[in-house]
Amino acid sequence: MSQQLRVQNFTVSADGFGAGEHQSLERPFGTADPGRLMAWLLATASMPNRADSGGNRGLDDYLVRDFGNNIGAEIMGRNKFGPQRGPWTDHEWQGWWGDEPPFRTPVFVLTHHPRPSFTLSDTTFHFVDGEPKTVLDRAREAAGGKDVRLGGGATTVRQFLDADLVDTLHVAVVPMEIGAGTRLWESPDDLLDRFHREVVPSASGVTHHLFWRR
Amino acid sequence: MSQQLRVQNFTVSADGFGAGEHQSLERPFGTADPGRLMAWLLATASMPNRADSGGNRGLDDYLVRDFGNNIGAEIMGRNKFGPQRGPWTDHEWQGWWGDEPPFRTPVFVLTHHPRPSFTLSDTTFHFVDGEPKTVLDRAREAAGGKDVRLGGGATTVRQFLDADLVDTLHVAVVPMEIGAGTRLWESPDDLLDRFHREVVPSASGVTHHLFWRR
Repeated sequence: MSQQLRVQNFTVSADGFGAGEHQSLERPFGTADPGRLMAWLLATASMPNRADSGGNRGLDDYLVRDFGNNIGAEIMGRNKFGPQRGPWTDHEWQGWWGDEPPFRTPVFVLTHHPRPSFTLSDTTFHFVDGEPKTVLDRAREAAGGKDVRLGGGATTVRQFLDADLVDTLHVAVVPMEIGAGTRLWESPDDLLDRFHREVVPSASGVTHHLFWRR
Repeated sequence: MSQQLRVQNFTVSADGFGAGEHQSLERPFGTADPGRLMAWLLATASMPNRADSGGNRGLDDYLVRDFGNNIGAEIMGRNKFGPQRGPWTDHEWQGWWGDEPPFRTPVFVLTHHPRPSFTLSDTTFHFVDGEPKTVLDRAREAAGGKDVRLGGGATTVRQFLDADLVDTLHVAVVPMEIGAGTRLWESPDDLLDRFHREVVPSASGVTHHLFWRR
């Protein structure tokens, strides 16, 4: 089976936003409330790096636990790594993901500003500039035959969708409004010309949209 | 997180049967039509050992692709290995699963009749006699910290449920009647005293029942 580019557990508001405006070090999701936006994921037993043995093991958990399943690399936008803009001024700060980032593979961070690669636990961050296709080729090579996760944010997912490089998307739609910020779509129907879709409501209140290439 | 005992993609008819009567070499599911019973699984992209690159990648596929995710061993009943009863008379016949069995871990086959272990590709079959708890302890040890899959059939799942050893169950209920054979339950409600449950209808027509321990 060929190497897929997969979007997984990407969470947006009912009005299509993955994050609000005014991202900062203290507020990775800007004006959006991350506790409310990500509540469905935080409640699952398989949430990466969960500290206790609780959590639900229903539908949401099956989707969450697919996070690392046959994934060999991730591509993420710069804003998923940190809130800085322009040239890097502080190499000591190593991203939002702590000493044990949940990715456990090479991660390619899209940025116009070079910075040396570094490793935290099982995750190595590389900082790359280039067209989506070029970055994807590099991530595929690093993935050693496994699939590549496209980690977001919304701007990055859009960029790869516009280049027609995405094979599957799982988007969780949360019943809340954000109003402004980075937007994935005007409507989930936007993708139906190129993708099959299943819409699966969950007991948690979110609705999972599962897309795969026609 | 502790090692779970997981039932996955276990498929039953609307009247609760995992297989019909009169199992034979030619008819692993006895009088039940396996093509109809397993159609939902056969249609997915991630069906183990799928030969082509087609198949759907919707809800059913997320459940199917969880098959080997963090699994380190399987326990199965003798009738899932083959139709023979009583002492083994032909060691040349190595089960229904071909030269590349989909399990890719140690597999513990429950039987009162000893037989030497053997390996096919990445799968090693062991033939064990013992109480469910004893067999589970052995499978857990072989799983090297990962979870153990309880592979079925229905009689084996019941045996481990009755011993209260099962942590999670995913059962796909197919809208067809079998009428007689090996039965998992009178009703999916039978398990609600010990398990949480979510019921998730799929576009394929099957209904997924997801159980996890209270």
